[in-house]
Amino acid sequence: MKLFYSSASPYVRKVMVVAHETGQVDRIELAPAAVAPTSVNAVLAAENPLVKVPTLVLADGTSLFDSRVIVEYLDAQHQGRRLFPAEGPARWKALRGQATADGLLDAALLSRYENVLRPEPLRWKDWTDGQFRKVRQALAALAEEDLATEPTIAEVAAGCALGWFDFRFPEEDWRSAHPALASWFAKISERPSFAATTPKA
Amino acid sequence: MKLFYSSASPYVRKVMVVAHETGQVDRIELAPAAVAPTSVNAVLAAENPLVKVPTLVLADGTSLFDSRVIVEYLDAQHQGRRLFPAEGPARWKALRGQATADGLLDAALLSRYENVLRPEPLRWKDWTDGQFRKVRQALAALAEEDLATEPTIAEVAAGCALGWFDFRFPEEDWRSAHPALASWFAKISERPSFAATTPKA
Repeated sequence: MKLFYSSASPYVRKVMVVAHETGQVDRIELAPAAVAPTSVNAVLAAENPLVKVPTLVLADGTSLFDSRVIVEYLDAQHQGRRLFPAEGPARWKALRGQATADGLLDAALLSRYENVLRPEPLRWKDWTDGQFRKVRQALAALAEEDLATEPTIAEVAAGCALGWFDFRFPEEDWRSAHPALASWFAKISERPSFAATTPKA
Repeated sequence: MKLFYSSASPYVRKVMVVAHETGQVDRIELAPAAVAPTSVNAVLAAENPLVKVPTLVLADGTSLFDSRVIVEYLDAQHQGRRLFPAEGPARWKALRGQATADGLLDAALLSRYENVLRPEPLRWKDWTDGQFRKVRQALAALAEEDLATEPTIAEVAAGCALGWFDFRFPEEDWRSAHPALASWFAKISERPSFAATTPKA
């Protein structure tokens, strides 16, 4: 399998954490991909019309995206404990948790595009304020999600979201408002799957 | 179940099409919700920290979001033909198709926010150009997805994406470039589930 990736992407990290947790890191060949909403990348566009990472290309040439599809695919390819509960309330709780963490990232990423990618005179404070309202509410929701140390996909996604938020917004002190979430994050960050995938500049 | 909705949202339409296809429309109480990335909606925020529609609140008070989680939940609550294939290549194809259609919508919606919501002097053409590149590539990818008339979640999502694209970007002539996709869309639009949920201004 070939994974188009960029080292700072939290959605790629989700895939790599799942690859570690399910013993599939050695099956994945990493292909670096430079992506930005305003740039062209013809190589990646041939595999994924949305031109985003992660994109996974299987041995038979089938491409899979986005991160949610890839992590579920990987979780179906191993015999160990599943990160996606098969059914019932446990499944919906895990999927809702993943959606909360992904939504936190989507909003924080839109803020970053606004304040880093967009030319300064075209920035709109109402937009970043609105996205950051979602980020803060998502942090509060994750704090109430009763996250475990034995991860499902909710914990994987939450850990990746918090790690990226620290990486890109180090000035945001979310720990004071959510001390229990902070200590959960400290603990899950020690898992080998997280320690091996910490975002680097 | 209570569904927070807005009548023009294509992600809400996905949920409603699935509710029709699976015979669950009568179980859903509709709660209108005004949402925009720059606005506050405290009622909806109490159920979904990302303050987006659709949000589904179950009888026991559990809230589910986003649209992908809700449609999979609804599909697990009936005894008829499933819209989510249970496993194997059929599942990954259906999920990839849904991701393509949702990604088309995400990009088209960001373009619309740029050109309708954002004050005119702050608009950035590189941004809308980049998002529209994704939209056009996603249209081409949907044209190659071998969509069926007996829908899986891929067909539901693709039909909702094309319907919303017509509704909000009527000047975009995608049919000339993709005549087979256009005739597939004309056919699926006649299904009762789609005819009952056509977006209205």
